[in-house]
Amino acid sequence: MFVILVYDIEVKRVAKVLKTCRKYLYWVQNSVFEGEISNANLVKLKLELKSIIDEEKDSVIIYSFRTTRYSNVEIMGIKKGGEDNFL
Amino acid sequence: MFVILVYDIEVKRVAKVLKTCRKYLYWVQNSVFEGEISNANLVKLKLELKSIIDEEKDSVIIYSFRTTRYSNVEIMGIKKGGEDNFL
Repeated sequence: MFVILVYDIEVKRVAKVLKTCRKYLYWVQNSVFEGEISNANLVKLKLELKSIIDEEKDSVIIYSFRTTRYSNVEIMGIKKGGEDNFL
Repeated sequence: MFVILVYDIEVKRVAKVLKTCRKYLYWVQNSVFEGEISNANLVKLKLELKSIIDEEKDSVIIYSFRTTRYSNVEIMGIKKGGEDNFL
């Protein structure tokens, strides 16, 4: 399936979350990842994130799309992410 | 159509971008909005954003989905946005 993951994480935990998300998805903007992912990997990703984040303070939203990617994506301004653009 | 909008904007322009996005979409997380929007309103939203952002420094990504909303959305940790949750 195709997922878009957005997070809002306290600074001290950001590096770990970033590293974890990058194992499974592409980084597209400061706190946004996207990509094709299998069900099994999505479960793994969620478990890993759960072990890192503070559920009282942080927020992660995962949109999943069963059949399609988005029908259109428009980027205004600079393109911050990308497959070969690492922090 | 259904859109997910994520932005990464310099602090001094954030308030204006927030206010503009809120006219058309629901705020779901610090820099994330979503909602149903007509084509005409999406054009208006993009024009308004274009007049606010610095395209050399800021970034706005708009994912649009013609037919469906997402098939699933999972929120881990706190829910920061919501229709009645204003900054």
